Amino acid sequence: MQDLQSLLETTMKQLAPLASEGTLASYIPALGRANPAAFGACVFGVDGSAAQYGDYAEAFTIQSISKILSFLCCLLDSPWERIFEKVSLESSPSSFNAIAELELHATRKPLNPMINAGAIAVLEFVAGDTAEEKFGRIRALARLLAGNPTLDCNEEVYQSEQQTGDRNRSLAYYMKSIGVIEGSVDSLLEVYFRACALEMTCADLANIARVLARDGLGDDGVVLIPKEVVRVTRAVMAMCGMYNESGRYAVEVGIPSKSGVGGGILAVVPGKMGIGIYSPPLNEHGTSVCGNALIKELSDRLSLNVF
Amino acid sequence: MQDLQSLLETTMKQLAPLASEGTLASYIPALGRANPAAFGACVFGVDGSAAQYGDYAEAFTIQSISKILSFLCCLLDSPWERIFEKVSLESSPSSFNAIAELELHATRKPLNPMINAGAIAVLEFVAGDTAEEKFGRIRALARLLAGNPTLDCNEEVYQSEQQTGDRNRSLAYYMKSIGVIEGSVDSLLEVYFRACALEMTCADLANIARVLARDGLGDDGVVLIPKEVVRVTRAVMAMCGMYNESGRYAVEVGIPSKSGVGGGILAVVPGKMGIGIYSPPLNEHGTSVCGNALIKELSDRLSLNVF
Amino acid sequence: MQDLQSLLETTMKQLAPLASEGTLASYIPALGRANPAAFGACVFGVDGSAAQYGDYAEAFTIQSISKILSFLCCLLDSPWERIFEKVSLESSPSSFNAIAELELHATRKPLNPMINAGAIAVLEFVAGDTAEEKFGRIRALARLLAGNPTLDCNEEVYQSEQQTGDRNRSLAYYMKSIGVIEGSVDSLLEVYFRACALEMTCADLANIARVLARDGLGDDGVVLIPKEVVRVTRAVMAMCGMYNESGRYAVEVGIPSKSGVGGGILAVVPGKMGIGIYSPPLNEHGTSVCGNALIKELSDRLSLNVF
Amino acid sequence: MQDLQSLLETTMKQLAPLASEGTLASYIPALGRANPAAFGACVFGVDGSAAQYGDYAEAFTIQSISKILSFLCCLLDSPWERIFEKVSLESSPSSFNAIAELELHATRKPLNPMINAGAIAVLEFVAGDTAEEKFGRIRALARLLAGNPTLDCNEEVYQSEQQTGDRNRSLAYYMKSIGVIEGSVDSLLEVYFRACALEMTCADLANIARVLARDGLGDDGVVLIPKEVVRVTRAVMAMCGMYNESGRYAVEVGIPSKSGVGGGILAVVPGKMGIGIYSPPLNEHGTSVCGNALIKELSDRLSLNVF
Repeated sequence: MQDLQSLLETTMKQLAPLASEGTLASYIPALGRANPAAFGACVFGVDGSAAQYGDYAEAFTIQSISKILSFLCCLLDSPWERIFEKVSLESSPSSFNAIAELELHATRKPLNPMINAGAIAVLEFVAGDTAEEKFGRIRALARLLAGNPTLDCNEEVYQSEQQTGDRNRSLAYYMKSIGVIEGSVDSLLEVYFRACALEMTCADLANIARVLARDGLGDDGVVLIPKEVVRVTRAVMAMCGMYNESGRYAVEVGIPSKSGVGGGILAVVPGKMGIGIYSPPLNEHGTSVCGNALIKELSDRLSLNVF
Repeated sequence: MQDLQSLLETTMKQLAPLASEGTLASYIPALGRANPAAFGACVFGVDGSAAQYGDYAEAFTIQSISKILSFLCCLLDSPWERIFEKVSLESSPSSFNAIAELELHATRKPLNPMINAGAIAVLEFVAGDTAEEKFGRIRALARLLAGNPTLDCNEEVYQSEQQTGDRNRSLAYYMKSIGVIEGSVDSLLEVYFRACALEMTCADLANIARVLARDGLGDDGVVLIPKEVVRVTRAVMAMCGMYNESGRYAVEVGIPSKSGVGGGILAVVPGKMGIGIYSPPLNEHGTSVCGNALIKELSDRLSLNVF
Repeated sequence: MQDLQSLLETTMKQLAPLASEGTLASYIPALGRANPAAFGACVFGVDGSAAQYGDYAEAFTIQSISKILSFLCCLLDSPWERIFEKVSLESSPSSFNAIAELELHATRKPLNPMINAGAIAVLEFVAGDTAEEKFGRIRALARLLAGNPTLDCNEEVYQSEQQTGDRNRSLAYYMKSIGVIEGSVDSLLEVYFRACALEMTCADLANIARVLARDGLGDDGVVLIPKEVVRVTRAVMAMCGMYNESGRYAVEVGIPSKSGVGGGILAVVPGKMGIGIYSPPLNEHGTSVCGNALIKELSDRLSLNVF
Repeated sequence: MQDLQSLLETTMKQLAPLASEGTLASYIPALGRANPAAFGACVFGVDGSAAQYGDYAEAFTIQSISKILSFLCCLLDSPWERIFEKVSLESSPSSFNAIAELELHATRKPLNPMINAGAIAVLEFVAGDTAEEKFGRIRALARLLAGNPTLDCNEEVYQSEQQTGDRNRSLAYYMKSIGVIEGSVDSLLEVYFRACALEMTCADLANIARVLARDGLGDDGVVLIPKEVVRVTRAVMAMCGMYNESGRYAVEVGIPSKSGVGGGILAVVPGKMGIGIYSPPLNEHGTSVCGNALIKELSDRLSLNVF
């Protein structure tokens, strides 16, 4: 994978100036203090090969990338027919925190588990009776897949999420009022905010992505996640993972991915590799500008588009 | 007013069977236990004449009729330009607890103070620093206008409102997230739920309505509410007071009114009379079936339509 | 009415500079060529008194004011229950040419006859088998009420309406697809566009308004329109006549009115007077800036607010 | 491919009874007269192998499957940046003929070329000055890809589409009014309706799909469509091809596909095979019930899911 290492370095040096076209997420103070010049990436092959460059060891909060972990947990922990009674699997053209479609769409449930409403709703199906247990479950899966037994929630960012989380509270209470959520709103939101505040590096993301690229198998051949769960998750990532530009991304990149407003992107090339990228400046949809450009370039150069 | 008394009795006897066409509000247990056969009305002339019949002395919670009291208080207590920065004055064709229009409508504020969102938002402009003070302010005005110094919140219904108030919580947190509400959501909702749970009789409603019919003057000629405040309130009642059937009601009845899901209707015939009606079974829009029929009949027979 | 004449002159001189705050309607070339300084008004008392000032004899196309005439004709010509199966009577907070609410609102019919969709739909209930007959019917009523047997459609403006009428075509075909409209879309649109292009003066508008203020009676005491039709029309004007600022207008002015993007306003003060105003520069909602200011001033000074 | 032939036969015999769960498209009389028991399928491998069973030689109109052909033509004939100025590439959770999202969605353009609005809009970018030329262009591509030089529009169905096409007219005029469409609405709709009425067999569909599975190469190695055009088209099919159940379909089937209310499905397994299926009874979203079940079974049994 020497060539990939070179490609990564060359491409990232070329793309780095694009950071100036993005803006830092501002709604959470801690995110607004990120280093806009930070740019890191890890590409881990399913065969154990690895390429990495830049600030790949810098930690950041994964924000919406946590939606993959929550979704994996709920698929692992609950009967699927119960989950899909409460959350659909369709893409949404609206913003990730839109509420109108909950009221106007005939199904009266969140359109998919990659928008905020859906990601909150699926938490009811994650194992655990308390917020602490549910978050513990998600963190445990994250640690297992990332092979990093110490990764954890950034307490300061979590507090910020709580303080600025009124839109998510509105979504959750709306879902409670129409029966999509049955339990405690405060408890589910605590889990949601803590999962968003999980702190990882590009290496962590790429390790998680690599397990998904290996159909759920760990390096020792042990099944970490059943293949069917992985396949559903990859499909949902492909359809809905990049907010309301998932369609454009499918056409231009074609790799099941999930971005977060912390600047991270986790991308899974089935059977080939797991990718983790970090660069905080965001485009208008909430996705890392440099991260988006880098993965597009990798997809083009390495023919990774699944379509 | 002997003729009016006869008219009231005759009409109410004729209309009473219509109660079977309505259904009791069920979302709050206490409302679901109301007597569906209860039917009372008071018509108090601006000149002091009075007609009343049926269960006019029975107490019930005023629910949405409280929106008039909250709106009056905010108009009395705060600069109007600040209020109307946060709440519009346009009718809404949507349900009283709709949230989509908060997101989709260009103004990004509640359409009017007679729907739940607007009624919650105006509470920030009612005098008082705490929920207790703000509710005290509203209750004091209610007692003053009704001439009933002991009317108060029904604590059991208030608790029910709190327990079933997730949709209103969703509306409030949404408004908080877009800056329509700046203070504590919990505090405003406490005021809102307590105002909805104010307990009155038809006589109380008719007394309040009579002050509004008298342009805000008390019987002794004292100004209880400035005329301009009364006029604005009557206009808003005419435009938005009967949920999303306000237009039909304007055509058929044409009297500034406000209904509540507790079965009450407060109606103001400017310069002529104040009307209070109570009958719990509701139509699909949340208005008392018998109340609606009675006021239509009164409007027709007494030529009360302002249009 | 000498005082009124003075009031009118003084007020109009004061308000004339406001014209610079508005903009001419631009979507139809002919409207964009109007004289922005034109400002005229007629106030005709039910008793025969009259005040008029400025460019009150200048002809202009009435545009949306024609919605009153179409609505009057359908109420006169068809059973009301059939009309109200197809068109509601509720205000709309959306723009006059909005289409989304036709699809999203549960009733699946135009919200009221004062928005474009509703005004097109009611034309099916105007007497006549052809576009020519239906338009003839509307023009005949206009001539009768205005006492002006020669008023007619401005052919150039009509042609412009046809050429730029794609949004209205879209509304009409949508209504056809959901069964609100059953007949020929082209035919109804021809009637609609011709009615919009009816050319009148302030005097014509004030004469029409005066008949409505007189509950439908002509000067000789003959019933030109039944009282019940007049009352319904005035209520609908009050609720929906000023586009999506009808609520604000009710609060500030409180007179059943209808404005048009040609710069005209027709206002009916029940039992008192009919008013016609003309000044082409429009506010953001499509209503004459000077016209709006003038009628507000008249309402304040003469206590015309019905609420 | 003997095994595939057996699998196809066995599976289709098992699934045939599902036809009773669907309903025939009724809005076009000709579609309502289809044989509900008809069930055919062709699976053509990229290597020239073939399996086919049932009513695979029966002709039917392709309806929405034509959206692929129109999209291919516009990508071949016009600069892509001009196309994507007018049509987005995002999935829609709404019905295929929804109009509200055109007005409410911030981009003010059709969400993707697989819903009616988008499919009409892209026709402006198909080569040709007249409806005849544009349709000729689409038909020519269809004939080339299907290897069937005589396939053509079913004139009777085309006439039916015209007669019942009011919703599409509404969409087109709306787009014209907001500048998405610049040319003649009637002309574009003629092309649209004619393309929907193209008559094909399962073999035709499978042949077209097989070219797309071969990255655009014909059997003789000639480039029929450039690879990049094929990739974009397959991505859009995967994201938006199955109406508003594209997400569920991605999870369950994971094959770029397009269905039509005529009962056809065209599915492309990149690098492997092209599939054409026909069975008229539809599910609530407008997709063939048996066709959907068959392709899901093929995907499961042959591991065709791309995710």
